[in-house]
Amino acid sequence: MITLYDSAISGNAYKVRLILSHLGIPVRRIEMNVDDGSTRRPDFLKVNRNGKVPAVILADGSALAESDAILYYFAEGTPLWPTDRLDRARVLQWMFFEQYNHEPTIAVVRHWIAHLGKTPESEPALPAKIAAGYRALDVMEEHLQAHPFFVGGSYTIADIALYAYTHVAHEGGFDLGRYPAISAWLKRVATQPGHIRITD
Amino acid sequence: MITLYDSAISGNAYKVRLILSHLGIPVRRIEMNVDDGSTRRPDFLKVNRNGKVPAVILADGSALAESDAILYYFAEGTPLWPTDRLDRARVLQWMFFEQYNHEPTIAVVRHWIAHLGKTPESEPALPAKIAAGYRALDVMEEHLQAHPFFVGGSYTIADIALYAYTHVAHEGGFDLGRYPAISAWLKRVATQPGHIRITD
Repeated sequence: MITLYDSAISGNAYKVRLILSHLGIPVRRIEMNVDDGSTRRPDFLKVNRNGKVPAVILADGSALAESDAILYYFAEGTPLWPTDRLDRARVLQWMFFEQYNHEPTIAVVRHWIAHLGKTPESEPALPAKIAAGYRALDVMEEHLQAHPFFVGGSYTIADIALYAYTHVAHEGGFDLGRYPAISAWLKRVATQPGHIRITD
Repeated sequence: MITLYDSAISGNAYKVRLILSHLGIPVRRIEMNVDDGSTRRPDFLKVNRNGKVPAVILADGSALAESDAILYYFAEGTPLWPTDRLDRARVLQWMFFEQYNHEPTIAVVRHWIAHLGKTPESEPALPAKIAAGYRALDVMEEHLQAHPFFVGGSYTIADIALYAYTHVAHEGGFDLGRYPAISAWLKRVATQPGHIRITD
């Protein structure tokens, strides 16, 4: 049985629950508090020295962290990871875009606004984060105007990675009404077999 | 012939030059200015809609961006990409760590200090970026105390990804003298066949 160090409010953790649901792989979930220092305690640092969820313990006891690396691990050998080499590299291109340009802006703004509340530390950084989040959405919108999914015409882990925080971006105040191609893609993702909601 | 949209001061671009040197693949370099808006002009946005270097044009005319996705593309099928599935996922774990925790702190501080100079916008953000950079170095140091390379006992693209900005971290004021395991690893990386310097 796979163990997931999980967080109900984390889109990164949701990515792992979502791919395991698609693949019909059972999982034992351990809910972690991501705001009270639990992920920085010595027992958890043995699982992920970088102190973040999600992390998984595989059947053989091995630990693996970083949501998009976990997606890769489970996707390999399934239709969620392309058979073409350039398509595989493009899946990773979108996943690195997600972790560099999308998550630190869209997910962080959502966390500050929907979960932590604005603080004297976060408030000055908000306008730049919001602007950068919209720039990431602009890049996605332009691509999705010409493509049903991010890579190779079918649903892959690039879509899972980008869906996780895009579909809850409104919780951070982002207006997805400006983005018809993203909105249509969100609906396509939500109808994939085995889809679950972030609240499931 | 492969074309690289390059930048002499970018560690991300250096990763691509370094793997191509290891693999003996010739490349045509187009130097881009990363500070004057050149990467946001329409002609370059056709290459990488996300407006960043490095990006490559492959022999068939296809474009590929995101330094670590480019590393994957060239590494597949070589000793730089492991044969074991969990090792492959762990290479990606370290590469996502690099893009999320290491590059936005260590590379950004270096760029601000060594290239742009401190500005009224960057100066207030510096202490937090420097602290986060040291936390990333702490994670690397602890791992390298027990391992000669990041994954599987041999040199992979995880090492290339993390070497790029670690070996010039002192240009941003980071004191690598505190990190003997990182320092020994930097020397091991620099003796790999085909190694080139960032200034080559």
